[in-house]
Amino acid sequence: MGEADGAGSITAALVVIGDEVLSGRTKDKNIGHIAERLTDVGIDLREVRIVPDVEEDIVAAVNALRQRFTYVFTTGGIGPTHDDITADSIAAAFGVSIDVDPRARAMLLEYIAEKDLNEARLRMARIPAGASLVVNEVSKAPGFRIGNVIVMAGVPRIMQSMLEAVLPELDKGRPMLSRTILADAREGDIAAPLGEIARAFPEAVIGSYPFRDETDGRFKTNLVVRSREPAVLDAAGDAVARMVEAAAGPG
Amino acid sequence: MGEADGAGSITAALVVIGDEVLSGRTKDKNIGHIAERLTDVGIDLREVRIVPDVEEDIVAAVNALRQRFTYVFTTGGIGPTHDDITADSIAAAFGVSIDVDPRARAMLLEYIAEKDLNEARLRMARIPAGASLVVNEVSKAPGFRIGNVIVMAGVPRIMQSMLEAVLPELDKGRPMLSRTILADAREGDIAAPLGEIARAFPEAVIGSYPFRDETDGRFKTNLVVRSREPAVLDAAGDAVARMVEAAAGPG
Repeated sequence: MGEADGAGSITAALVVIGDEVLSGRTKDKNIGHIAERLTDVGIDLREVRIVPDVEEDIVAAVNALRQRFTYVFTTGGIGPTHDDITADSIAAAFGVSIDVDPRARAMLLEYIAEKDLNEARLRMARIPAGASLVVNEVSKAPGFRIGNVIVMAGVPRIMQSMLEAVLPELDKGRPMLSRTILADAREGDIAAPLGEIARAFPEAVIGSYPFRDETDGRFKTNLVVRSREPAVLDAAGDAVARMVEAAAGPG
Repeated sequence: MGEADGAGSITAALVVIGDEVLSGRTKDKNIGHIAERLTDVGIDLREVRIVPDVEEDIVAAVNALRQRFTYVFTTGGIGPTHDDITADSIAAAFGVSIDVDPRARAMLLEYIAEKDLNEARLRMARIPAGASLVVNEVSKAPGFRIGNVIVMAGVPRIMQSMLEAVLPELDKGRPMLSRTILADAREGDIAAPLGEIARAFPEAVIGSYPFRDETDGRFKTNLVVRSREPAVLDAAGDAVARMVEAAAGPG
């Protein structure tokens, strides 16, 4: 992605934990939301991995990614049942102990009567040593942050609450700005002039996304120009828009 | 996942290639479809990675995954524009040359008039040396298979056509069977007996998936029992169903 992707940008990876996504039973709704929100605030999502509910796979993914990116987010696997192994896996990844955290237990008691706080539910208060908690406005059982790893729930509404709770405390870069130009043309008819524009604006990222317009059955193309620099976005975007007009014109 | 996941199973990983998914602009629709179809035919999807349009990232993901799994599928980045770098990246991953393939060129000419077969469109006929082609019934520009790596388009309709074209020639295992039991209960109220059932049936995979029922605003739980063995599925599924009934009963 060249110079548009300069050093100093704040980056992130996401690890989605769950057999149910890999089996196709559950359609993930978190990746798109997290990608949009991080882009909005100036954190560049650079990689996503979906891994099964297997400790060694979770540990391997988290340890590989936390070395490479500013932040690693995880979703899923922090509930009360036997297949919820994320907190223990993160403790293993960091080589720290894990136990019921009194702060987390107190949060659970805001939502669950003490008589209902059985052993299974107490699992949701198990937090790796040294982690800070991420509040959950929906159902109280918290997520947590250890080092640069932020552990969130898998239920979308709860995950979203945790993401908003943690975003204010994270470092952010300048947001990547974008402009989309719709071309009523097949990619292959505009690829050459588009490539020339991409070469002329190395500080912009220019993507070409074909799709089939279901209203008329035709293949069309969304051209997306991205830059952190408003002036570059304007200049490269105008060049793409002029090219698309010229391609559509008579001749 | 223990014994349910025995040796001899046929496994796969998926690499989704595209800045547009990582930026949140495009919501991926391929992961869920591929996960479902592979599960249907008896191929276990074990990991998904979403990576940007950057050659070294694509090469690293494909080379890591093709060592570990029976098959690696990729989606995206095989069109005619400057940002379509998947074919070149796969050639680099395998250390082979890449050039316009006469078979692929002939396929393009079924759909595109020779006068419109410009240099950009000819990029879609660039195929790594030694690869076989995967036909595309929608718009002809083919995918390809090299070693255990299957390269498909990103446009869902085209990807689906390619997936159906390639599935018949792949090895398959016994399909993982599944049964879902809805519990009108919060996870924490059934976690203990569910854990006992999971321990009693080590050959089954039992997952617990909480969700908020938007019709009544209550948190409920889907319990999913999975096994390749119909008798195990029945026995473990019946045990879960009885437990759910008992939990709901007067008491």
